[in-house]
Formats: sequence, C-alpha cells, structure tokens
Amino acid sequence: MKDAIVRAAMQLFDARGFRETSIQDICDAVGVTKGAFYYYFTSKEELLMEIHQEYIDDLLKSQEEILNGDSSASDKVLLIMELLMNSIQNNRSAAKIFFAELRQLGGDRLHSIIAKRRQFRKNLESVVCSGMDGREFRTDLDCGAITMAILGIVNWSYQWFQPDGRFPSYELTRQFHRIIVSGIMLDP
Amino acid sequence: MKDAIVRAAMQLFDARGFRETSIQDICDAVGVTKGAFYYYFTSKEELLMEIHQEYIDDLLKSQEEILNGDSSASDKVLLIMELLMNSIQNNRSAAKIFFAELRQLGGDRLHSIIAKRRQFRKNLESVVCSGMDGREFRTDLDCGAITMAILGIVNWSYQWFQPDGRFPSYELTRQFHRIIVSGIMLDP
Repeated sequence: MKDAIVRAAMQLFDARGFRETSIQDICDAVGVTKGAFYYYFTSKEELLMEIHQEYIDDLLKSQEEILNGDSSASDKVLLIMELLMNSIQNNRSAAKIFFAELRQLGGDRLHSIIAKRRQFRKNLESVVCSGMDGREFRTDLDCGAITMAILGIVNWSYQWFQPDGRFPSYELTRQFHRIIVSGIMLDP
Repeated sequence: MKDAIVRAAMQLFDARGFRETSIQDICDAVGVTKGAFYYYFTSKEELLMEIHQEYIDDLLKSQEEILNGDSSASDKVLLIMELLMNSIQNNRSAAKIFFAELRQLGGDRLHSIIAKRRQFRKNLESVVCSGMDGREFRTDLDCGAITMAILGIVNWSYQWFQPDGRFPSYELTRQFHRIIVSGIMLDP
C-alpha cells in the first residue's frame, strides 16, 4: 500500500509538479482514503522526502561498491556515469522529481538531501583526484571542474534523454565517457 | 515601466517560482497598480513568455555572429560555451526561469520556445559536424552526442555556479572546453 502511494505520487509530481498535486489527487489515483495516506505519511512533504531519500541512498550505496572495487580511475568514472544514466533512465519520474523539486523540501530535510548529494559529488571528485595522483589523468586541469563536467553531462540528460532515441543508454554513456577521457580533437 | 515590471517578475519567479507568484505580488514589488500591469501584458504567462523569448533570442543572435565568423570549429565551440556561461552568470534569474519554468508555458508559446531552443542546439551541432568533416575533430564519435555533452556541461552550471566560487566564469569555461577537446586522460 505504502509503495502504491509513493508510485502514484511520483507519477503525479512528474506530470503536474509537486505544488500542483494535492493529497486528495494522490488518494484518488490509488483509490484509497486520506486516512490511508496519513497512516503512512504525516504530510505531502514527508512523502517527497521519501522519494528524494530513496533516490540518493540507492545512488550512494551503488557508488560505494564502485569506489571499493579494483578498477582504474577511468573505469570507475565510467561505472559512476553508467550508474547515473541508468538511474535516470530506469526511474524517470523519480529522477525528474529529484532534480526539479529539491527546493520544495524545507529545513532539515533539505539540508539532509543536499549533504548526501554533496557526498556523492565528493566521492566522484576523489576518484578524479586519485586518477591525477596516479598519473592516469592529466594534472593541468582542476579535479572539481572535471567532476562538475562529468555530472553536467550525465545529469543534463534527464531533460532530454528518450529511451526510444537513436542511442541506447549504454552506448550514449560510452560516447560521453570517451569524450571526457579522450576529448573530441583529432590527434595531430 | 515595462522593463521594471519584467525585472521585478524575474526576481520573484526566481525566488518563489512562477506558480507561487501572483500578478499582485509583481505590482506590489514595482509599486504600481494592476492597471499598469495589464497595460503591458494580458497575463502572467505572457510576461513569462517575454522572459523566455528575450533569453533565447539574445542567445541565437550572438550564436549567429559566432557561426558567421572565421574561427576554427574548436574555437567556435569555445565561443558558444562562453556565450552560454556568460548568459547564465550575467542573468542568473532569467537563466533559472529559462531552464526551470519552461513547462509553465502552454500551447503555441511552448512550441515557439522549444523550436528556438532546438535551433540553438542544431546550430551547435552543425559546428561540431563541420569540425569532423574538416578533420579537426575525431570522427568515431557522434555529432549529436558531443553536442548534448557540451550543452550538459555548461547548462548544468545554472544549478551550482557561484560567481564568488574558486574560479571566475571564463577560467571555468576554458577548463570545460579543454576537457571536451582534449579529454582528461594523460597521453601515454
């Protein structure tokens, strides 16, 4: 039941926006009373928090497995890019809410999600920096700038990626990864 | 007067969101009556359209000058990245509205802005493709994927770029451009 409420809310938040969706709308979509909603959630914002929390917790857990692996820095970057692209492709509604409705969270909830998102970014940055320290990556670029470039490339896709487009997600991710690691310039 | 209304609306839309801002809020911020508002705009959506239109028309005009220049494909890519980064940095409120409030436009207005945004993307894609045709860029990557990577890197910065951060905008753009053209991998 709780899961059905969360799924219905995600579809409504995605289609109409968080503000424009009422608790009654969510209950109507699932076919339950408001009593059922309030059995699981104290407010619409608590439900939104649950969506954000599940999304970022899953990302952090999968990222940790990648960080603990034995791959090269370049391969870890690829695995983290794939992780993000897959999460956007497989949970499109959740991804759109995660990126577009962050500001609807307030106070402690907002701070908690921002802290976890920062942790994800810092973890990626540590991979990039270690690739520089290990002479795998060029050292004349800034770790932080590279990290934001990688996040920009993959996260922006939530705005435009179509599962039925000309590339499957894994092929697109590989193209993006090749751009990041090797650039687009033809070697002289 | 019209300009003052647009500026006040931009600040309010940025801070609170388009939906959460009323025409009365805008009038209060400028210190005018609703009559003054309706002298210039038939609705809040028409005002939002004006913000979107001005933003994308300015970008297209500047992009055209770059396209008509004699620079190499790589330099044109840099100039277009600088154009986007500067527009985000110099018009932060307008940029946030442009990226976050597109869906608040409806019908013909939405289609018109989407068509212009597509034109901007297509123009950048033509630069990238011509760089491949001229053997300046590698030909084993997809023009469209490279274009989306470039747009992702610069556009994502509207979410996080701080003018008082560790890099000035032009230095960050140059780092991003170097990542795109040369990649981060240390040459063997």
